[in-house]
Amino acid sequence: MQSIRKDSGLKNTAILLIYCSDRQGILAAVTEFLNENRGNIIYLDQHVDHEEGLFYMRVEWELEKFAIPREKISDYFQTLIARKFDIVFSLHFSDKKPRMAVFVSKMSHCLFDILSRYTAGDWDTEIPLIISNHDTLRPIAERFGIDFHLIEKSSSNKAEQELLEIEILEQYKVDFVVLARYMQVLSDQFVANFPNRIINIHHSFLPAFAGAKPYHAAHERGVKIIGATSHYVTADLDAGPIIAQDVVRISHIDNVDSLIRKGRDLEKIVLSEAVYKHLQRKILVYNNRTVVFN
Amino acid sequence: MQSIRKDSGLKNTAILLIYCSDRQGILAAVTEFLNENRGNIIYLDQHVDHEEGLFYMRVEWELEKFAIPREKISDYFQTLIARKFDIVFSLHFSDKKPRMAVFVSKMSHCLFDILSRYTAGDWDTEIPLIISNHDTLRPIAERFGIDFHLIEKSSSNKAEQELLEIEILEQYKVDFVVLARYMQVLSDQFVANFPNRIINIHHSFLPAFAGAKPYHAAHERGVKIIGATSHYVTADLDAGPIIAQDVVRISHIDNVDSLIRKGRDLEKIVLSEAVYKHLQRKILVYNNRTVVFN
Amino acid sequence: MQSIRKDSGLKNTAILLIYCSDRQGILAAVTEFLNENRGNIIYLDQHVDHEEGLFYMRVEWELEKFAIPREKISDYFQTLIARKFDIVFSLHFSDKKPRMAVFVSKMSHCLFDILSRYTAGDWDTEIPLIISNHDTLRPIAERFGIDFHLIEKSSSNKAEQELLEIEILEQYKVDFVVLARYMQVLSDQFVANFPNRIINIHHSFLPAFAGAKPYHAAHERGVKIIGATSHYVTADLDAGPIIAQDVVRISHIDNVDSLIRKGRDLEKIVLSEAVYKHLQRKILVYNNRTVVFN
Amino acid sequence: MQSIRKDSGLKNTAILLIYCSDRQGILAAVTEFLNENRGNIIYLDQHVDHEEGLFYMRVEWELEKFAIPREKISDYFQTLIARKFDIVFSLHFSDKKPRMAVFVSKMSHCLFDILSRYTAGDWDTEIPLIISNHDTLRPIAERFGIDFHLIEKSSSNKAEQELLEIEILEQYKVDFVVLARYMQVLSDQFVANFPNRIINIHHSFLPAFAGAKPYHAAHERGVKIIGATSHYVTADLDAGPIIAQDVVRISHIDNVDSLIRKGRDLEKIVLSEAVYKHLQRKILVYNNRTVVFN
Repeated sequence: MQSIRKDSGLKNTAILLIYCSDRQGILAAVTEFLNENRGNIIYLDQHVDHEEGLFYMRVEWELEKFAIPREKISDYFQTLIARKFDIVFSLHFSDKKPRMAVFVSKMSHCLFDILSRYTAGDWDTEIPLIISNHDTLRPIAERFGIDFHLIEKSSSNKAEQELLEIEILEQYKVDFVVLARYMQVLSDQFVANFPNRIINIHHSFLPAFAGAKPYHAAHERGVKIIGATSHYVTADLDAGPIIAQDVVRISHIDNVDSLIRKGRDLEKIVLSEAVYKHLQRKILVYNNRTVVFN
Repeated sequence: MQSIRKDSGLKNTAILLIYCSDRQGILAAVTEFLNENRGNIIYLDQHVDHEEGLFYMRVEWELEKFAIPREKISDYFQTLIARKFDIVFSLHFSDKKPRMAVFVSKMSHCLFDILSRYTAGDWDTEIPLIISNHDTLRPIAERFGIDFHLIEKSSSNKAEQELLEIEILEQYKVDFVVLARYMQVLSDQFVANFPNRIINIHHSFLPAFAGAKPYHAAHERGVKIIGATSHYVTADLDAGPIIAQDVVRISHIDNVDSLIRKGRDLEKIVLSEAVYKHLQRKILVYNNRTVVFN
Repeated sequence: MQSIRKDSGLKNTAILLIYCSDRQGILAAVTEFLNENRGNIIYLDQHVDHEEGLFYMRVEWELEKFAIPREKISDYFQTLIARKFDIVFSLHFSDKKPRMAVFVSKMSHCLFDILSRYTAGDWDTEIPLIISNHDTLRPIAERFGIDFHLIEKSSSNKAEQELLEIEILEQYKVDFVVLARYMQVLSDQFVANFPNRIINIHHSFLPAFAGAKPYHAAHERGVKIIGATSHYVTADLDAGPIIAQDVVRISHIDNVDSLIRKGRDLEKIVLSEAVYKHLQRKILVYNNRTVVFN
Repeated sequence: MQSIRKDSGLKNTAILLIYCSDRQGILAAVTEFLNENRGNIIYLDQHVDHEEGLFYMRVEWELEKFAIPREKISDYFQTLIARKFDIVFSLHFSDKKPRMAVFVSKMSHCLFDILSRYTAGDWDTEIPLIISNHDTLRPIAERFGIDFHLIEKSSSNKAEQELLEIEILEQYKVDFVVLARYMQVLSDQFVANFPNRIINIHHSFLPAFAGAKPYHAAHERGVKIIGATSHYVTADLDAGPIIAQDVVRISHIDNVDSLIRKGRDLEKIVLSEAVYKHLQRKILVYNNRTVVFN
């Protein structure tokens, strides 16, 4: 179904994500470095956390006239700038599309939302495969022409099945994983393979109602607003760095079924927002929190 | 792709939508009528507009033990209740699925959202066909196994093409039409065939930015919030009864492209919300406004 | 400062709040009772919780031509209707203004918001007194011409001070208490004196961040939305029936100070919304949840 | 009522608001200028409008160790930096509190909200006077110890009354004017005296429902969301640069009275948000739009 995908018009730019202790002159040093080498800055956003004395920055510039060849940028930046300010940085190129794997169980709404955006060419990504512990959504994968792997899990085979998943992910050269209402907890070992590269959607306004059956818990508690939360997966269940949240008003009229219905819209939008920001390389993680640049 | 559709569990209920001048005793008369005939009420909502002296009501009851056969309910209600109070009413049965046609142009996000809900069995509807003035989205229709009719329009052939569309809609026994970012204005003649049965999504917070290019206009005006509006189509462009609206915050950082991107999520959610309410027979139209029951 | 208060135009109506097991015919019986006695219904809202099989209703009608004298309505309704359906009900008259006491500590924003509405005549209430454990806000009370009682509390004198508070509340004939950022936990004994008649504002989106310093906890957790919750006070801290909630988006840019600043606006609006609904007798409590009629 | 005001802890900082055509090196030049002169930057935000090729920036730095005396900063910056890049800039000092005049008519909710924040010390401002065309709110001004001037206006005396107002504003050394539901249109001559220094609150989601009686118009149109808009006043009625907007959901249940009630909360919060941003010198105006820094 690639026919409706528009030319995504990939930009020829480089992106630096920077993180260090705040010191005078960092911003000037970085912009000076780019200016001197004829890198035309098309995006710059920075943030200082004065309480923790930390400096965060995202800068994107055009490579066309940039004096330093792309394969040497990282080395030059490390030597000339990063060393001086003890900067931790990551360098990305906008013409390199991250490869995404989607994990699903039986519910289709998040998967459809992801494939809808992918098919329309809204995202600069490749989605080579879908992994599931049920066969329910295989027909969707087939219609969209994406490989589908059924990897069933039980308490007894979980460890070996995860090894199989990791093997497949490597084989498909996957950069990050999206859990689109995947109803299995991943082991710490699995998570450790993809630090800040597994995005989950939890169907509550975290930290409220972590764990199982949050809509039932929300109904039981009698809240007047429900929410959804996308976050990077860490070893602690539902406790990773939050990327995006959204909410919707409910009332005494709502029962658990209508919460589930209304929640589906939140879940798919909030998950896709997180994936979009990740693809844009606009997220920095520190202290189990995120900086999400505009 | 029907395989993932769950059993929608259609209820065996009848639904009355009522509308009349407010008078003492209407509510008691209607509920008494249902009680006496052993109709177990599972939903009742009513609203009185005291300024205009109007009474609105939606009541849904189980048919299983109801004493009056379903084909005679309308007649009995007219004779025994409606005549007395000058009630305008419509009667619906929840096991009758309304048949929907979707009109599209080139953008896929609203269509995908509709087909995602349809395929998951979230909606009690049938979607037998998609009509478009471009061939762009034909591959999507094919993947979802839905008939696709290309009906191209120009200023010279519009009238005859609309006659063709009406013919096809009749042939498919379509009950209502959803304009999923269909970029053609329908003639008054066409609209007259489907009073309160054509649902449109306009990509602005109406009545602000009616007409073409609302995101450009919103950016030009410098608003801090953008919106989307679903409404029934009437002869006046973008002026029909509003069903649902939603908004999202923006800032000076947004350009027209990012407004379009953010607006897509609003559009699909707000349009689908309107379709859902329509399918639930929860909308009453009067004076170019809607009562949308909970 | 009564001079700017407009004539509040108190209505001469009665209000019934009803709560019972759902059975066929309740709605018809109640409306019939009012109709037969020439009670013109100006508001009716009802809700059925099908899961728990419970029926809730609020009905308001004009007393002018009502056949039953106001002092006998409760007796007649009990005998003729409530007994038959095992209805629990409360009867209110809109011309009787509930008397409110406000408890404060040092923060003024919620108190100002309450007094602003009170002075403008927006609320049908009397506020005869303010109680505080600090003297900070006495000048505000004096400017608004409201009695101010300083009742300082320590761990050793809390019990006796609460007895003093109860005595003062009785002396002022107070119907309900509003905790406007009152930074003291009330004992179970105190709370037991005012079941569903103490309204608190908690500065988080409950059940997230119950207890002390919720803005610090929210910042620490890295949430992207903060909230405020108004609820009736019960013996369990921050666990009473929720009346209203609202939220506001935040980002990595916000520190604890800006969360506190943004939260103040939420707190005052959400608290005042709860007070307004309480004054309108639009709240029913059951199973530690609320029905809040529109 | 100054007794409850906390020490506002005025910072000893300078703020530069910058606006120019986007060129390479501006950001580096400005930060270098501050760094070289030992100005510790505590806030920096910048924005590039790539469509219009414009660069916007707000930077705030500590003056304590800054090498250039505060009275010479403007001159040095003009000579060394601004001239080179054709920068338009304004320089502010955070220890100078802008002086605000509030214009009101009969409604008190916005005025109370402003005075509540002022009294609590939330804003770094002085409010020496209130001007009104009615005597209604004089008692509030008196309770808060603020001068109140009644300046009645008719179609015949408007021009001379405005001259009187300007005279009084000069006499009180007022920096900017807040129209807190002031129900009079100011003449172009008056507005010209305070470019981008008069803040108005309009009780609709502009550009929808500009002009008189927006809540009546919103009810008539049947919208599902209402809003409020704060903006700088220009010669065109309700068409000045928008600073902040907010909305609230409504339904068919709402009548004009309940829209007015719900709208009051929007109005006061949105107006106060605009005043806060203005006091923080976080607003830049260009092309009838605003950049509002975080």
